[in-house]
Amino acid sequence: MDQRDKKPEVAGKPCILCCAITGSVPTKDNNPALPVTVAEQIESSHAAVEAGASIIHAHVRDDAGRPCSDPDRFALLQDGLRRHCPGVIVQFSTGGRSGAGQARGGMLPLRPDMASLAVGSNNFPTRVYENPPELIDWLAAEMRAYEIVPEVEAFDLSHILQAIARHKAGDLFGKLYVQFVMGVKNAMPVDRDVFDTYVRLFEARAPEGNWCAAGVGAGQLTVNEWAIAAGGHTRA
Amino acid sequence: MDQRDKKPEVAGKPCILCCAITGSVPTKDNNPALPVTVAEQIESSHAAVEAGASIIHAHVRDDAGRPCSDPDRFALLQDGLRRHCPGVIVQFSTGGRSGAGQARGGMLPLRPDMASLAVGSNNFPTRVYENPPELIDWLAAEMRAYEIVPEVEAFDLSHILQAIARHKAGDLFGKLYVQFVMGVKNAMPVDRDVFDTYVRLFEARAPEGNWCAAGVGAGQLTVNEWAIAAGGHTRA
Ligand SMILES: [Zn+2]
Ligand SMILES: [Zn+2]
Ligand SMILES: [Zn+2]
Ligand SMILES: [Zn+2]
Repeated sequence: MDQRDKKPEVAGKPCILCCAITGSVPTKDNNPALPVTVAEQIESSHAAVEAGASIIHAHVRDDAGRPCSDPDRFALLQDGLRRHCPGVIVQFSTGGRSGAGQARGGMLPLRPDMASLAVGSNNFPTRVYENPPELIDWLAAEMRAYEIVPEVEAFDLSHILQAIARHKAGDLFGKLYVQFVMGVKNAMPVDRDVFDTYVRLFEARAPEGNWCAAGVGAGQLTVNEWAIAAGGHTRA
Repeated sequence: MDQRDKKPEVAGKPCILCCAITGSVPTKDNNPALPVTVAEQIESSHAAVEAGASIIHAHVRDDAGRPCSDPDRFALLQDGLRRHCPGVIVQFSTGGRSGAGQARGGMLPLRPDMASLAVGSNNFPTRVYENPPELIDWLAAEMRAYEIVPEVEAFDLSHILQAIARHKAGDLFGKLYVQFVMGVKNAMPVDRDVFDTYVRLFEARAPEGNWCAAGVGAGQLTVNEWAIAAGGHTRA
């Protein structure tokens, strides 16, 4: 990106790069390099950190390679990350593709540095991404109990406002951190005007917070560039 | 409202008033004047039309006063509206508080003029408002088959974009009509900046369409005033 595209206050401000090493959707069939065993995930994280990543966003898989929420796998992964990538910020997914209900937060007693948190519901390509208010309350309370900073995954504009309101109400541990997610079919598309609106509203209403942005699928690099140029953080 | 608050192009443009005579949440305990029988609903609609309403947004109730989707009740109501309120636009709710799955569209063969349509999912005060993509596709197809104009209920920004995309793809019968819904707990709050963003994006991307806005609960009059002043339509 051209340095002249950046806002003046952006130059020199560090950008936090988050690497989602595995995700919950792809399989070895899609890409044989996808790390699915804990050993593969640790080495993949090691490489990501050497390439500049500060946060590792982690999902675990069962022996068949399917997304799961097994706390034992998360424990092994966290141990490995602490040894191979000292200082990296470990972020566990509590997303709904890896389990249902409170099972999604079963690994939180491991006290990762961060964990993803939904604060609303929306549609996914073939189904509803269900995050009932009660489950959100429970996950947020667990994160407070274990002193875990949530990364709020905002799939729509109201999710950003809900995150700000929950943070103000003392619901969310630590500093507010919201990720704008674009490009999931049936949710918010990759849209420049919407992105600018997100940034403007967030910065006006949560000046002490931080935002990052992720484009899912084909829009990944586009959103990475928008986020970096606008002075935010980003996920790959 | 002061005439000077209006945009110049708004003065003289007719505003469509929609009256939601019953809704799905309130009961006679909340307000004894709430019309819940078909006879009460017809008289309530009659009064609304005399007061200026052009659209009647209708839910039906069972004998115990609970929301239901019974096509026979909708048929009786439609007959009564045609007789007592000739020319009024009859809009049936396919909302998720009155039934589940395809039962929500069981009255569409009655060919009302309009029907409400969700195009995404979101949270409600105590649960998820579930509108899976497959159900949306089915409801939209039924509305095309019976030549019913959908009123898209947009509870979040992505719902507006989805409505525009679906209309462009030929999914939605007739002229695009989107209602911005604000004020439902855990969904989009009543928010002036968000309202302005909704109007700006909708008018830029769907100049041939129409938008209306509804504030649920305490924000009702506020959103009515915003919508009228901005040249849109509104629901009470
Ligand atoms: Zn994830
Ligand atoms: Zn290593
Ligand atoms: Zn309704
Ligand atoms: Zn009458």
